[in-house]
Amino acid sequence: MRAADCLTLERAADAVGGRVLGDGDVVFRRFAPVHDAGPEALALLADRRYAGDLEDCGGCALLVSEELCDLEAGPPDRLVVPDPYAALLVLVPLLHPEPSVVPGVHPAATIHDSASIPVSAAIAPHAVIAAGVVLGENVSIGANCVIERGTSIGADTVLFPNVTVYADSVVGKRVVVHAGTRIGVDGFGYVTEAGNHRKLPQVGGCVIEDDVEIGANCTIDRGSIGRTVIGAGSKLDNLVHIGHNVQIGPRSILVAQVGVAGSTRTGEGVAMGGQAGLVGHLRIGAGARIGAQAGVIGDVAPGETVSGYPARDHRSYLKAMALLMRLPEVMQRVDRLERRAVERDAR
Amino acid sequence: MRAADCLTLERAADAVGGRVLGDGDVVFRRFAPVHDAGPEALALLADRRYAGDLEDCGGCALLVSEELCDLEAGPPDRLVVPDPYAALLVLVPLLHPEPSVVPGVHPAATIHDSASIPVSAAIAPHAVIAAGVVLGENVSIGANCVIERGTSIGADTVLFPNVTVYADSVVGKRVVVHAGTRIGVDGFGYVTEAGNHRKLPQVGGCVIEDDVEIGANCTIDRGSIGRTVIGAGSKLDNLVHIGHNVQIGPRSILVAQVGVAGSTRTGEGVAMGGQAGLVGHLRIGAGARIGAQAGVIGDVAPGETVSGYPARDHRSYLKAMALLMRLPEVMQRVDRLERRAVERDAR
Amino acid sequence: MRAADCLTLERAADAVGGRVLGDGDVVFRRFAPVHDAGPEALALLADRRYAGDLEDCGGCALLVSEELCDLEAGPPDRLVVPDPYAALLVLVPLLHPEPSVVPGVHPAATIHDSASIPVSAAIAPHAVIAAGVVLGENVSIGANCVIERGTSIGADTVLFPNVTVYADSVVGKRVVVHAGTRIGVDGFGYVTEAGNHRKLPQVGGCVIEDDVEIGANCTIDRGSIGRTVIGAGSKLDNLVHIGHNVQIGPRSILVAQVGVAGSTRTGEGVAMGGQAGLVGHLRIGAGARIGAQAGVIGDVAPGETVSGYPARDHRSYLKAMALLMRLPEVMQRVDRLERRAVERDAR
Repeated sequence: MRAADCLTLERAADAVGGRVLGDGDVVFRRFAPVHDAGPEALALLADRRYAGDLEDCGGCALLVSEELCDLEAGPPDRLVVPDPYAALLVLVPLLHPEPSVVPGVHPAATIHDSASIPVSAAIAPHAVIAAGVVLGENVSIGANCVIERGTSIGADTVLFPNVTVYADSVVGKRVVVHAGTRIGVDGFGYVTEAGNHRKLPQVGGCVIEDDVEIGANCTIDRGSIGRTVIGAGSKLDNLVHIGHNVQIGPRSILVAQVGVAGSTRTGEGVAMGGQAGLVGHLRIGAGARIGAQAGVIGDVAPGETVSGYPARDHRSYLKAMALLMRLPEVMQRVDRLERRAVERDAR
Repeated sequence: MRAADCLTLERAADAVGGRVLGDGDVVFRRFAPVHDAGPEALALLADRRYAGDLEDCGGCALLVSEELCDLEAGPPDRLVVPDPYAALLVLVPLLHPEPSVVPGVHPAATIHDSASIPVSAAIAPHAVIAAGVVLGENVSIGANCVIERGTSIGADTVLFPNVTVYADSVVGKRVVVHAGTRIGVDGFGYVTEAGNHRKLPQVGGCVIEDDVEIGANCTIDRGSIGRTVIGAGSKLDNLVHIGHNVQIGPRSILVAQVGVAGSTRTGEGVAMGGQAGLVGHLRIGAGARIGAQAGVIGDVAPGETVSGYPARDHRSYLKAMALLMRLPEVMQRVDRLERRAVERDAR
Repeated sequence: MRAADCLTLERAADAVGGRVLGDGDVVFRRFAPVHDAGPEALALLADRRYAGDLEDCGGCALLVSEELCDLEAGPPDRLVVPDPYAALLVLVPLLHPEPSVVPGVHPAATIHDSASIPVSAAIAPHAVIAAGVVLGENVSIGANCVIERGTSIGADTVLFPNVTVYADSVVGKRVVVHAGTRIGVDGFGYVTEAGNHRKLPQVGGCVIEDDVEIGANCTIDRGSIGRTVIGAGSKLDNLVHIGHNVQIGPRSILVAQVGVAGSTRTGEGVAMGGQAGLVGHLRIGAGARIGAQAGVIGDVAPGETVSGYPARDHRSYLKAMALLMRLPEVMQRVDRLERRAVERDAR
């Protein structure tokens, strides 16, 4: 199915294997959340907590899960699917095709003679490609990016504007790097002598494996010696910091503003909530879940869920924090018990 | 009053409606805090905690509040006002006029033919303005900025250097965006199937309303579907992260390194302290105050002040944390009560 | 000793004053951590917690401390030194010479006529040097950097790509600034009148003293009035935020994602762990240590170590947090004591 200006509920249902409630000929041109839907929008309702927004929903139809499809308020014409987000994976590209990238090197880019640039690559204005850089097929380098000497970037990878990749980094295939991210930065390593900090040369590698996506304004350090590695298929949100020699396992999720200090290694499929921090030299087991803002100062076992500072088992932590709020009461009760004991002894 | 090289205390007092203690003919050429004031500086004392710096104050005169104007130490010649900061709003521009921006497109900028650039706009070197971009009157685009296709930017807006605005974003009038900030970035949305994370296309809008100021190296995601909105008159400090579909109410204050996760909506005039984090899908009421480093995982009522992780009423939290430090003592008292009870039972 | 392609253990031992165990003729070409060492690597073992990696170490030889040199597993040929990191300070440059910077202004850079650029300076493509900028000898300005009017940069300073230095900043000698960092940004200061935030003009200075290194994507605000100062020899990791009028003492260490709010002053040799936050207007004594993620809301005495939010003495905090996890037990014990007291009274 080719991209189009509009869709009917019926065609959309065919595309995702859903069913229509009401009029299948209703036409929509865009998608929107329930509270922000104009008259040409298919409104998304995937979560019961937004059911209250249905009253004022301006959308022409509703994309809704089986579970919520019977709610009375809101547009009566509905596309019902098991998982609305999975349906969006199919539907959004039908109305919003990926903008096509025009191959070629913009004349305002600066490319070193020794760089290897296939004709299928697209290099935007004012990008700088240094000596010995090797780009794969269909690579797209955004405006004002700087790719330093000796770096290689795999096929079909996209760098948004204003990205810096330091020398000798290795970026895989189908990687997406958002604006302003820095890859292969010198790690933070000093030897302190009499209060003066002498820099340890940071000469290790930085490897971004295939199918990684990195958000905007992230910083990924190179190894001091050895390598920093972001495992295949992992996704990093904005403003994430990865220290030198860190190894992030494949298919992990790091939410915005996470920081991982040097030499920590994490297993496959680890999830880290926003603003979580991990000190250096830890081992985090596969499938572990680190809560938002958690401060992890010890190893985490595979599959474990931790939160708080210092991070511990998530449920115990929340329970303890709830009891913490009852401390004033506990203090009073202990006071009373002591007074009672004194009175009894006096009798 | 035109900008000048120097001012007398008397003229400054006229400009702000203050009164002079001592010699009104004293001349100053700059402003400085008390501890860092040279002989040509009007030293600012607005807060009693800096009174101790008065002893060594090198300034030629003092700008001071009524409340603190009688302190003995420091320069005897003084400009006394009700609110020194409000006075600075008037006085600083008299000595430090805004640098004038010279309109015109620098020849080293790259402008697409289809972009609309008024003659009053200033485009610095190596800026890139893509197809279909529309700029308002007097817009200033800093060096090495990248404005992607279809974005519109309202009159009198200033982008400092190295900013990226993704495609189809909408930036209002009189907005200020500091260096390295990214607007309209793809949100962080994936559907996970068998451990693999498939990206949900991020095709929503990103709207920065009028009179917003955004600090350096911030990241503002576009909506997945629907829009991300930064409300009119809101001010964001550096390194702030705003997730997709977030709506920040007008006239809010977000201090440095705050993170707001996807789909959270905040009311008018909310204040968030530095490094505070809000998880997704929350509602934060108008006028709420989120403490520095707070971790907010539930809705916050209008006007409420919260802190801690998980965030709660600020006073209760601080009280509980204070009691927490007395836990060792509580444990001892409980031990003692138990021993006493055992002894009594033994008698 | 000139840089070389490879070294023998013997020559390396001569260079650092270490001793060889086993065969001094073993040749290595690179350095690596024990777990990531190929056959041509001298593997580094400096910390007992990595001893377990020795079993699978693929390196041809081991660089090891006296304390760990007798471990049986791993390469038998060893270079034994008192401090392996100090040895790396000497050894790494022998195999990895600093890339030489070629002096000269790239034709695709944009330099204002009034800027002062010595012939020894290196200006990369698409850098922008504004009016009145003064660069010292051997300064290296990376691609797509923007140095605004009136800024001075001392000799031997290196700016990596995509850095912005705002107007009238002062950067010292031998400073290193990593990609995407912003120096001299407007501070975050507003006067709020009837809910509207009016910006206080930010006209102070921003001073980076000699021998400072600043990581990637940091933000250093200029003073509002007065100056922001990063003291000589201090080292800042990535994504650090420094507010206006802050003074960081010399030879301090600020780990990634630290935030220091306006007007706080810190003494010499302070260390701040990752993601730590300091509110404004504090005094932090020389040699103080701020734990990772600590939230500091009060002054810290010289030499003190604090952690937690609100930050307190580190040991007390950790002890209290450990007891916190025993609160459920305390509650049960208090319940039991109360029941016992009631029963006794009933008797």
